[in-house]
Amino acid sequence: MQVNGKPYTTLWYDAAAHAVTIIDQTHLPHEFTLCQLQSLNDFCTAIADMQVRGAPLIGATAAYGFAFALLEDGDDANANYAYERLLATRPTAVNLRWALQRLWQVVKPLPATQRGPSALDAAERLRQQDRQACERIGEHGLALLSQLNAQKHTDQPLNILTHCNAGWLATVDWGTATAPIYKAHQAGIKLHVWVDETRPRNQGASLTAWELQQNGVPHTVIADNTGGHLMQQGMVDAVLVGSDRTTANGDVCNKIGTYLKALAARDNQVPFYVALPESTIDWSMTDGLANMPIEQRDSREVTHISGIDAEGKRCEVQLVANSPAANYAFDVTPARLVDALITEYGVFAPGDLPQLQATLKAAP
Amino acid sequence: MQVNGKPYTTLWYDAAAHAVTIIDQTHLPHEFTLCQLQSLNDFCTAIADMQVRGAPLIGATAAYGFAFALLEDGDDANANYAYERLLATRPTAVNLRWALQRLWQVVKPLPATQRGPSALDAAERLRQQDRQACERIGEHGLALLSQLNAQKHTDQPLNILTHCNAGWLATVDWGTATAPIYKAHQAGIKLHVWVDETRPRNQGASLTAWELQQNGVPHTVIADNTGGHLMQQGMVDAVLVGSDRTTANGDVCNKIGTYLKALAARDNQVPFYVALPESTIDWSMTDGLANMPIEQRDSREVTHISGIDAEGKRCEVQLVANSPAANYAFDVTPARLVDALITEYGVFAPGDLPQLQATLKAAP
Repeated sequence: MQVNGKPYTTLWYDAAAHAVTIIDQTHLPHEFTLCQLQSLNDFCTAIADMQVRGAPLIGATAAYGFAFALLEDGDDANANYAYERLLATRPTAVNLRWALQRLWQVVKPLPATQRGPSALDAAERLRQQDRQACERIGEHGLALLSQLNAQKHTDQPLNILTHCNAGWLATVDWGTATAPIYKAHQAGIKLHVWVDETRPRNQGASLTAWELQQNGVPHTVIADNTGGHLMQQGMVDAVLVGSDRTTANGDVCNKIGTYLKALAARDNQVPFYVALPESTIDWSMTDGLANMPIEQRDSREVTHISGIDAEGKRCEVQLVANSPAANYAFDVTPARLVDALITEYGVFAPGDLPQLQATLKAAP
Repeated sequence: MQVNGKPYTTLWYDAAAHAVTIIDQTHLPHEFTLCQLQSLNDFCTAIADMQVRGAPLIGATAAYGFAFALLEDGDDANANYAYERLLATRPTAVNLRWALQRLWQVVKPLPATQRGPSALDAAERLRQQDRQACERIGEHGLALLSQLNAQKHTDQPLNILTHCNAGWLATVDWGTATAPIYKAHQAGIKLHVWVDETRPRNQGASLTAWELQQNGVPHTVIADNTGGHLMQQGMVDAVLVGSDRTTANGDVCNKIGTYLKALAARDNQVPFYVALPESTIDWSMTDGLANMPIEQRDSREVTHISGIDAEGKRCEVQLVANSPAANYAFDVTPARLVDALITEYGVFAPGDLPQLQATLKAAP
C-alpha cells in the first residue's frame, strides 16, 4: 500500500544489500522509519520489541530470520538455536511457530549448505502467499461491500466500523479487515471508516488511522465507547474486523472489545463481518468461549500511555494513580453474532465452515 | 466520604472564612488539592475549568456562587448579572439552571438586603438535600446488592462493573452509582468493582478508581473494551451506572459506552442497574433514541491525553497523528435493557416510572 505517495510492503528482501527492510512500527503514527535486518539478533529484536507485529507479518519476519541464520550456518545445531530463539520472541503468536515449522520441514532433508538458499526461497514464497491471500480476502470482501453499497439509497458514503489494526501493517500487504476497504476504495465506492482507537495499545488510533490516511481513505478516529451510539443512529453500514484465532464453528477470538461491537451490530441489524486468512482457523477447537485461552498482558498498558509531547518528543504518561489494573487482550465473539467470515477461499457463514474444511482436505 | 483517612464532602461553606472550600478535581488522581472560592469569579472559574464537575455538584457550586454574589449586592441588576455569568459556565448542564432558578424563586420576592443571607440558607439546604438523596439511593441500592450477594453461592466477592464517575466526586457526598457500593461495603458485603477507564476523558481511571481506593473498596481499572469478556466469563454480578438524563419511559442517557455494557449485561443475564436522583428524569421526553440531544465535544479529548510524566509533572501527549477524530459524549441505553432504576424514592422498573410521577404529583 501507499506511504507518502509511494507503494510499500511491510517487509522485503533486498538481495544487493543482503538485508530485509521493515517499517519500524513502534514509531508510527508520528514517524515513518525504515530499518534493515541482517543478523538473527536483528530479526529477534524486531519481533520482540514489536517493530513488526500482527500474526501474518510476525510469521513472515521469522521466516526470513530463520533463513538468514541458515545462510550463515546450515547445520542442525545452528538451525535449532535460531528456531528456538525466534520462537521465544513472542511465545503466544501462532503464526510464528507455523512459519518456522513450515520452513524447517522444507529444508531439514537437505545438506547443510543448501538449507540457507532453500529457506530464503521458502521465505520469499511465504511472503508472496500472504500477500496473495490478503488480496483475495479483499476481492471477496469487495463483493460484499458492493452489495451493501448498492442497497444504500442515499449518496452518503458506505460507513464501515473497524476495531484494532487488521490492516496491511499487520500483514505483508493489503491487510485482512482493510483489504476489502482498500479494494472498495480503488473500485470507486464512496467509503468512510470509523476507526476504534482500541485501548489499551491504541492500534486503531496509531496504525489503522495512519494507514488509511496514507492511502486516502476517509476515516474518523473514535473512542472505543462510541460504536454503539453510531449504530443506533444509522451511521454504520457494516462492522469489519480481523481475527487472531477462529474456531471450527466460527467463534472469533479478536482484540478485546470486538464482542461489544458485535452485540451492537446485531442489536441494530448492522452486518458483522470478520476477515481472516484460513491459517488462523483452529480446526481442532469448537467452543471458543469455553476453550480459548485469553492472554493477560502487563497492566502498565492500561495505567500508562505513550504519545508525543508538545515538542514532538516521544513521551509516556501515567493515567492511573494507585489503583490496580487488569489487561485482558482478547475476547471471543460467539459465531451466532457473526454474519460472514471473509477468507481467501470465499465468504462463509460460520455454519458453512465444515464445507471449507472438506474442500481443503480434498485439495491435492 | 474518606480522603487520606478523613471524612470530606466535595464542597462546604466555612462561615469563619466566608468561603466555600472545594476539591480541585483537575488535579486528581495524582494530587489532592483543596481550593477556596469567595468571589463570583472564583465560582465561575471552578465550574468552567471543571475543578468541580458532575451535574449535582455543579448545581450546588452554582447555588453558593449565586448566594455569594447576592451577599455582596442583592439588587436585581447584580442578581441578573451573576445568574447569567454562572449559567454560561457550562451551558448544557441541566442542574446548573435548575439550582439557579430554585434560588432565584426563593429570594426574588425579598428586599435586596435580605436576598444574600436567604440565598446562602437555600444553598445550604440544596447541598444537604443532595447529600440525603444520594444516601437514600445508597440504601435502596444496598437492598438490591444484598439480594444479589445472598444468591451467590461462593465466597467470591460481589463483582460490580461501573462506567464513568457517578461517584461522590460528582455529587456532594455518596455519589449515585457509588452510593449502593459504599453502603454495601460499610455493611460488610465483600465487594470488588471493575472500573471502566471511560475514554476519552478517563473519569473512571482518574476519579472513580481514586475515590474507591481512598475508601478502601477493592477495585480494578480496565479498558472500556473489557466488560463484555468479563461478563461472558461470569466475572460480573451486576452493572451499576449513573444517568445524566432519563426519559419518562426509562431510556437512560449516560456517558458514551454505557449502551455497550447494557447489551453485554443482557446477553449474559447480568442485571443492569441505573442509580439516579429523580431530578435527572426528564418527564417531558418519552423516546430517548429519537429525541435526546447528544453533546459532541472537542476532538482533542480523543487525539490527546493528559497524565503525569516520570518526574510526576502534569503532561499532555498526542495519540493520533493527522487523522480527524469525533467525540460523542453520551449515548442512550433503551429502557428494554434496564433492569432497575435506583432513585431516592425507591427502586423502579422502567415501566413503573409513571407510578413515581403520580406519587410526586400527589405530594404536597
